Amino acid sequence: MNERVVDFLHAEHDNILSRLDTFLRIPSVSADPAYSVHMNEARQHLAERLKQIGMQNVCELDGGGEAAVYGEWLGAPGKPTILIYGHYDVQPEDPIELWKSPPFEPTVRDGCIFARGASDVKGSTTIALEVVAAYLAVSGACPVNVKVFLEGEEETGSPTLGNIIDRYRDLLKVDAVLSADGGRASADFPTINTGARGNGQLEFSVRTADKDLHSGRYGGCVRNALHEMATLVASLHDVNGAIAVEGFYASVEDITPRQKTDTAAFPFDEKAFLGDVAASHHGEPGFIIREQLTLRPSLDINGMWGGYTGQGGKTIIPNTASAKLTVRLVEGQNSSDVLQQVAQHLHSHCPAGVSLEISNMFCGAPASTLSPAHPLVRAAETVLFNETGRQAAHVRLGASVPITAVFKEMLGVDTLMFGYNLPDEDVHAPNEFFRIKSIGEGLRGWSLFLEELGKYPVSAFSTPERLKQ
Amino acid sequence: MNERVVDFLHAEHDNILSRLDTFLRIPSVSADPAYSVHMNEARQHLAERLKQIGMQNVCELDGGGEAAVYGEWLGAPGKPTILIYGHYDVQPEDPIELWKSPPFEPTVRDGCIFARGASDVKGSTTIALEVVAAYLAVSGACPVNVKVFLEGEEETGSPTLGNIIDRYRDLLKVDAVLSADGGRASADFPTINTGARGNGQLEFSVRTADKDLHSGRYGGCVRNALHEMATLVASLHDVNGAIAVEGFYASVEDITPRQKTDTAAFPFDEKAFLGDVAASHHGEPGFIIREQLTLRPSLDINGMWGGYTGQGGKTIIPNTASAKLTVRLVEGQNSSDVLQQVAQHLHSHCPAGVSLEISNMFCGAPASTLSPAHPLVRAAETVLFNETGRQAAHVRLGASVPITAVFKEMLGVDTLMFGYNLPDEDVHAPNEFFRIKSIGEGLRGWSLFLEELGKYPVSAFSTPERLKQ
Repeated sequence: MNERVVDFLHAEHDNILSRLDTFLRIPSVSADPAYSVHMNEARQHLAERLKQIGMQNVCELDGGGEAAVYGEWLGAPGKPTILIYGHYDVQPEDPIELWKSPPFEPTVRDGCIFARGASDVKGSTTIALEVVAAYLAVSGACPVNVKVFLEGEEETGSPTLGNIIDRYRDLLKVDAVLSADGGRASADFPTINTGARGNGQLEFSVRTADKDLHSGRYGGCVRNALHEMATLVASLHDVNGAIAVEGFYASVEDITPRQKTDTAAFPFDEKAFLGDVAASHHGEPGFIIREQLTLRPSLDINGMWGGYTGQGGKTIIPNTASAKLTVRLVEGQNSSDVLQQVAQHLHSHCPAGVSLEISNMFCGAPASTLSPAHPLVRAAETVLFNETGRQAAHVRLGASVPITAVFKEMLGVDTLMFGYNLPDEDVHAPNEFFRIKSIGEGLRGWSLFLEELGKYPVSAFSTPERLKQ
Repeated sequence: MNERVVDFLHAEHDNILSRLDTFLRIPSVSADPAYSVHMNEARQHLAERLKQIGMQNVCELDGGGEAAVYGEWLGAPGKPTILIYGHYDVQPEDPIELWKSPPFEPTVRDGCIFARGASDVKGSTTIALEVVAAYLAVSGACPVNVKVFLEGEEETGSPTLGNIIDRYRDLLKVDAVLSADGGRASADFPTINTGARGNGQLEFSVRTADKDLHSGRYGGCVRNALHEMATLVASLHDVNGAIAVEGFYASVEDITPRQKTDTAAFPFDEKAFLGDVAASHHGEPGFIIREQLTLRPSLDINGMWGGYTGQGGKTIIPNTASAKLTVRLVEGQNSSDVLQQVAQHLHSHCPAGVSLEISNMFCGAPASTLSPAHPLVRAAETVLFNETGRQAAHVRLGASVPITAVFKEMLGVDTLMFGYNLPDEDVHAPNEFFRIKSIGEGLRGWSLFLEELGKYPVSAFSTPERLKQ
């Protein structure tokens, strides 16, 4: 059957591009209330399209913010039910003056579509919908049951996603999530995203006096909040860049031989990776960069400030200083425990006479791991091997993927990110683009993938702990 | 003769208060161009008054900014010529809403005059002028030759003072400067200001990549500019608070027994000094606070910033961080050499892969010292002993006094600060005030002081190096 679907998609190519063009022309910027009319326009556009292709129960799922668009096709009893995730909202276009063509007037140059949202993630969302459409058009059926869930708040941090899932928990019952968001690591080398680091954050500030002091009147006999802040921040890492917080690595799982092999399998040019941003290598010794980024935790100060920061000088001894800190966590680490360790470190390194305040502690998503035995992974391996003739490398993300954690926690299911966007496509920046070539590859990939998933029994989707790597 | 002058001043007391009131009503804010008409008004007011009291050659000395007001009385041939320094400009009144009475409507409460500029420094400037006026009114002569120099840019950092002195160098030729600015350390205990620390400043910034990096994509394998900045700043002091810059103390002159005695002579409550601002003691070991503040150098970071400092979090690895640094210097230290040592320290502590930029290096005033043998000091000792029955303590300022350095450098003469303002009078803040009691004390003090100065031959005012302590 799949060949007919692929042929259909091939024949539809120009129409698909045209529909993507229409979708990209809707300036669905979720961050700016001025665009709310266009958010509504995007929802109506998608709902209409879902109905048009034969989805049922098409509706908006409202969690109190920008509603998600939902549609289902459940005509394959006994087959697994897959939630297809995408999002229709896009980043603001600023700085508008740096765009070479208007952000909401899609323009093709050099085989790429330039438009806000082209890569993140209207392109890959369109791929997913068009594959479902093709199956229903060609044979009136999909290889799996499908629930389409298109979020409208991904770019604003999904503030009401939890509400939506909570409110429509029964509707959203599925066996797994296939995400159009979360792209490929490389255009040439096939990869499967099998995990992500978790995260957590806190802020802290120090106070050394009840006001800024004049350096002529106090300089040489009192503590300076900036000196204290600097000493605290410097104490968080050792000279090599390893984290010096007591117990920080204690529960980190050792890297397994399989993880080492997987990491090494992905071609990665360390020199180019660093050289592209003029950075130098610095971090926990004994690991290659890809291991440091995906299998080892990190801790960074994201902002630090205190005292006078305007033009010229001001001869003060600042009395307060503040910093924002985030951690990236790996399997074995509990975000709350780790943040407590960091807080404990700061307290124990804070000298008498300095008051330390810790605030805005926020335990983000935990690290996530897809078992190699999970049908999402095995199906992806099969598809990518058939398509490229190469064994896909299992790669983990250094970043955190909140939706993956939310779906796992609230729906109890795993997510595979299977978007066709690539890392260089200037998402969140001017002149965002999506490669037209990726559309053809994505349409083939997704159609094969749904078919492959349909071969697994529903029971295969529940991942017992023992299968976890 | 002095008794008649003192009697005259006593009789004039209400008229003097009335003239001070008039002076304080002129909102001569130098920082804000919107007040320039009032700067002019203040100059005309002062010029008129100088003429009225019998000063000659009254004129404005223009250096390209707010002109200084000048007047002279040179009717005492053979006697020393003293430049009386004051300034007629005041700080802006912001934050206006915190004033209990309008800043430019002088109001008497609890024996104090509340008004912007009352303490800094129209009060003490009025004292100086009224004493000259009294001498001329009573006897048609002063005990010394007098050149009055009233600056209009003290509160904006004296940007054209150098120009003015350069342009009117011959007119400003004097034997010493007596400043109405720079006040008393205590209302109860007589003190003489015999020196000040010098200063210098620089800014520095570090760069670790060519843009902020995403902590998910790079966290754990690259340098973070804020970590590097923290490590650099932390390296500037040891754990006790002593400066760890190589060579920083090398040329600092040892504290002499006389300096130790002088410092100890001034009653100083360390606990109250720190307690008042909720600070704790921290600094170079082996010295009491007054020694740390006036006879030992200090180094402070005045501002430090980098990365994201807004609301919420941002998961970046900042690529740049910046800091502002100032030093307070003592006798023996050359500002340029010291700043070079700091720069050298930063460079040598900056690891490979981090680029360091040093900017806005500015060598401020050097430390200054008035010899105990200088007539300004000896005359002050005599006056204060006669007035209080106590030996005045020689005190040094921890701050820097740019005009003292400018007069020394450009005119080759020493300055004694002999203002009658006190440290608690909220200068530069809302509800600035000046004690009415200080006016009576100041009028007596200045009249005695001019008389005492008149007893010294001109030759006594040149301070050979050997007299320096």
